[in-house]
Amino acid sequence: MHGLMMDFQLTIPAIARRAEQLYAGRSVVSRLPDKRIHRTTFGETLQRARRLSGALRELGVRPDDRVATLCWNHHQHLEAYFGIPSMGAVLHTLNIRLHADELAYIAAHAADKVVIVDRSLLPLVERFRDRTAIEHVIVVGGGADTPPGMHDYETLINAAAELPFSETLDERQAAALCYTSGTTGRPKGVLYTHRSTVMHSLGCAMWDQELVRERDVIMPIVPMFHANAWGYPYTCMLVGAGLAFPGPHLDPESVLSLIAGERVSVGAGVPTVWHAVLQALDAQPHTYDLSTVRVLMSGGASVPEVMIRAFKERHGIDMVQGWGMTETSPVATLARLAAALEAADMDTKYRVAAKAGRPLVFIETRVRSADGIAPWDDETMGELEVRGPWVSSAYYDSPESADRFTDDGWFRTGDIATIDARGYVTIRDREKDVIKSGGEWISSVALENALMKHPAVSEAAVVGLRHPTWDERPLALVVRRPGMDCTPDELAALLACDFQKFWIPNAFEFIEAIPRTSVGKVHKLALRNQYREYFMPLNS
Amino acid sequence: MHGLMMDFQLTIPAIARRAEQLYAGRSVVSRLPDKRIHRTTFGETLQRARRLSGALRELGVRPDDRVATLCWNHHQHLEAYFGIPSMGAVLHTLNIRLHADELAYIAAHAADKVVIVDRSLLPLVERFRDRTAIEHVIVVGGGADTPPGMHDYETLINAAAELPFSETLDERQAAALCYTSGTTGRPKGVLYTHRSTVMHSLGCAMWDQELVRERDVIMPIVPMFHANAWGYPYTCMLVGAGLAFPGPHLDPESVLSLIAGERVSVGAGVPTVWHAVLQALDAQPHTYDLSTVRVLMSGGASVPEVMIRAFKERHGIDMVQGWGMTETSPVATLARLAAALEAADMDTKYRVAAKAGRPLVFIETRVRSADGIAPWDDETMGELEVRGPWVSSAYYDSPESADRFTDDGWFRTGDIATIDARGYVTIRDREKDVIKSGGEWISSVALENALMKHPAVSEAAVVGLRHPTWDERPLALVVRRPGMDCTPDELAALLACDFQKFWIPNAFEFIEAIPRTSVGKVHKLALRNQYREYFMPLNS
Repeated sequence: MHGLMMDFQLTIPAIARRAEQLYAGRSVVSRLPDKRIHRTTFGETLQRARRLSGALRELGVRPDDRVATLCWNHHQHLEAYFGIPSMGAVLHTLNIRLHADELAYIAAHAADKVVIVDRSLLPLVERFRDRTAIEHVIVVGGGADTPPGMHDYETLINAAAELPFSETLDERQAAALCYTSGTTGRPKGVLYTHRSTVMHSLGCAMWDQELVRERDVIMPIVPMFHANAWGYPYTCMLVGAGLAFPGPHLDPESVLSLIAGERVSVGAGVPTVWHAVLQALDAQPHTYDLSTVRVLMSGGASVPEVMIRAFKERHGIDMVQGWGMTETSPVATLARLAAALEAADMDTKYRVAAKAGRPLVFIETRVRSADGIAPWDDETMGELEVRGPWVSSAYYDSPESADRFTDDGWFRTGDIATIDARGYVTIRDREKDVIKSGGEWISSVALENALMKHPAVSEAAVVGLRHPTWDERPLALVVRRPGMDCTPDELAALLACDFQKFWIPNAFEFIEAIPRTSVGKVHKLALRNQYREYFMPLNS
Repeated sequence: MHGLMMDFQLTIPAIARRAEQLYAGRSVVSRLPDKRIHRTTFGETLQRARRLSGALRELGVRPDDRVATLCWNHHQHLEAYFGIPSMGAVLHTLNIRLHADELAYIAAHAADKVVIVDRSLLPLVERFRDRTAIEHVIVVGGGADTPPGMHDYETLINAAAELPFSETLDERQAAALCYTSGTTGRPKGVLYTHRSTVMHSLGCAMWDQELVRERDVIMPIVPMFHANAWGYPYTCMLVGAGLAFPGPHLDPESVLSLIAGERVSVGAGVPTVWHAVLQALDAQPHTYDLSTVRVLMSGGASVPEVMIRAFKERHGIDMVQGWGMTETSPVATLARLAAALEAADMDTKYRVAAKAGRPLVFIETRVRSADGIAPWDDETMGELEVRGPWVSSAYYDSPESADRFTDDGWFRTGDIATIDARGYVTIRDREKDVIKSGGEWISSVALENALMKHPAVSEAAVVGLRHPTWDERPLALVVRRPGMDCTPDELAALLACDFQKFWIPNAFEFIEAIPRTSVGKVHKLALRNQYREYFMPLNS
């Protein structure tokens, strides 16, 4: 027997309705390519989003059609986040850091019909457009220089009539598409629904996460061109929090001056960005007014405890990390303090803060080891599996990747993790990066975080390389801070405090920089290829 | 095109799964009839809930069957809140304050098959059972004195095997049933779904509501036998907040000692309860340690600004009110401070706190006046209509009440309200209580709240009575504080500061007590009946 409650559909237009009724005057600030600040409001953004819908309709976009974006974080991208799904079409965010060949594959696989592109990124579009079915190119900031045959974004939407947001969308309707940037295999498309987007926003807006509320001003450095900028565009609209977009300017000075100028309360970015910001703050500690900052959110890669300590102890700033993937919308866990840990000492709190965190509401986690589902003992490693209202059930048009989902309906993350008794997940490694040595597993991430505790170490990456005796052995690649020194023996001694002997890398190499992928993660595949024969006898 | 995200069903078993994984050790405290404190945990509660499911299954309860409860707030009632819906049956909370005739009607209309009843309330069951289809009576606290033919709750569940919570429930499945206690017409059943229950909990757990989080200990004085104790049983399980149930002891001393003894952070009750608590605190201000109290939540009737001020100014305690109805699960609005009002002066903040509040996430509000949908101008009165994920779409088996829902899918609340530019709703009256005088409307609630500002006034009720010239005119019924005095002229002069002349009641009567309904609201129908001919010429 069904109950008798309203069949209220959880859709992006429902978020927009609320934002227009309650938060129409809230600010959306964007730093423009020429560094000026552009200011608008939720109300104006949504009105312009309806014009964008109207313009797309006139260009022939119909429900289910894919409309791509290739843009930095700014107010027009926000308009696309609402205008495209609210007409029943699918917002397809293209990652501007990918190679033209990858973009060609992705845009063709998705059958994108239109692309909205920043003027500065137009050369990239021109390198792959002919390999796709893209019919229309709309240039943000194109102005009078818009190439013939393309549309200037402002001219186009100014000429268009507002198309009302759909009131009849099914919450299961596809809303957005984002391809994972796997370092192995073909990119795979994650097809979000309106419902998954709304549920993700609700989960993020719960009190215990302390992620976002009406009085916040959020600065998403994390890109809108990948993993939905952690959902902030939708969550901020839902709760009425202001937005401050950095545009293309992600250097520490631009980030810090945006915080100070716009009274930002929450910055959200990957550890690499915060690493650079920390260095800038250390160099010039009192240059910027950061008194409005409530928290810096970090995700996309594991945050070393030493960075969390450094922000807190040297600059009084709380850093909180989360974990997630494109397939989890992306926020799945956050390292917020459990109520039972409130009275714990600071060392314990830092240790907890360095974990991936506990699952958001209705996100369920389990670890599958060789012996089956692992106990929550903080020790037993295995592949992390998740399920929940904003987790993928399949990849778009990719039957060959069905093995990423278990028979009982969980997503296999490819991350090697442990879970502790309170439900805190710790990501020990990517499945392909964990080092298999003599039948045991060594966590490259744990070694990297420990190495970064050394004052002379700026960054570290540990990779497993083929070894004639042990199958694989760890090699540590270390970037030293300018003007500071350390030796392999020193680093080995440091690691010996925390790890068993067989975990200590066989060698330490000092390098200039850590190579990174298009989404800012350590590019371990490149490192493994570069050092492939390191431990092998020369004549093997 | 549907997206490709998991079809995760939003059900009460999903709440229970999360609670058992993350919050199994959280406390559930209940004050027993003999005033002792009973302690258990979420884990134990849910385990016993599965035993209750098993026992009910053995008694013949099948999916969709209605299982009634007639209980105070305590841990066994919490077990029923989980055990009954999690087996696909329907939890039907009976209001212990109703007359046996009403209960007979309700239990028969719902076709209740089983009733779980507190031993102290067994005489009430015995007065209506024979007019229903109830097959089994389960007595909480029955023990050895359980009458023959009935079941003792503990004996029953101790003998039962655990029935696992259903993993396959459709989120639209009926979960619970509650009848509105309208002062006019037959009671009408509201049939909640699993989804509406979950969405209500999510809405309540959002940061901007500051209602509940893991570190809270919630004391629901608001009854589990009506309007789901404002959803706290589910929301607390969802976020891991502790629960402290007052059992049958709602006197101020019991309430205050439970707060102090269990370090309660949030108390939730109707204004009548808080009125009594305030008087007790005023009489003995430093008797109880209330330092753990974060907020007192008030709802079920309008809270006069003077009470909010009194708690804050005399005792340092924040009081926040909400508005809702059985048909809205019940929480629909909360008078939290909008971000834009943070810097406002205290008078403004108190004025806002005395409103019904802004809608929770995805709750939409509108006011329909004689001229159509009213502007959000804080002035135009009309009937409040709402829609949202936890609002009724129809009453259970009650085709005659279809007129309570608009053709475009909104619920007509029967409340007369205004909405201001920020979205704050103010309830001006019940539709049947608003005073129609010479073609204009007078808000009885506004007059009552103004009267209660007078230091000698303890309580006030204003009713519209038939009048030979003006259709209706207001009569004010006033309860004075013990040992304090005031005159009709004084009260009329007080009202003249805030209201137009035609709003001033024609007469003021001083009475001993205000009659109240079964859910603690002012019984205006009784007052109108009592004073029916007050303004009429004797020979009319």
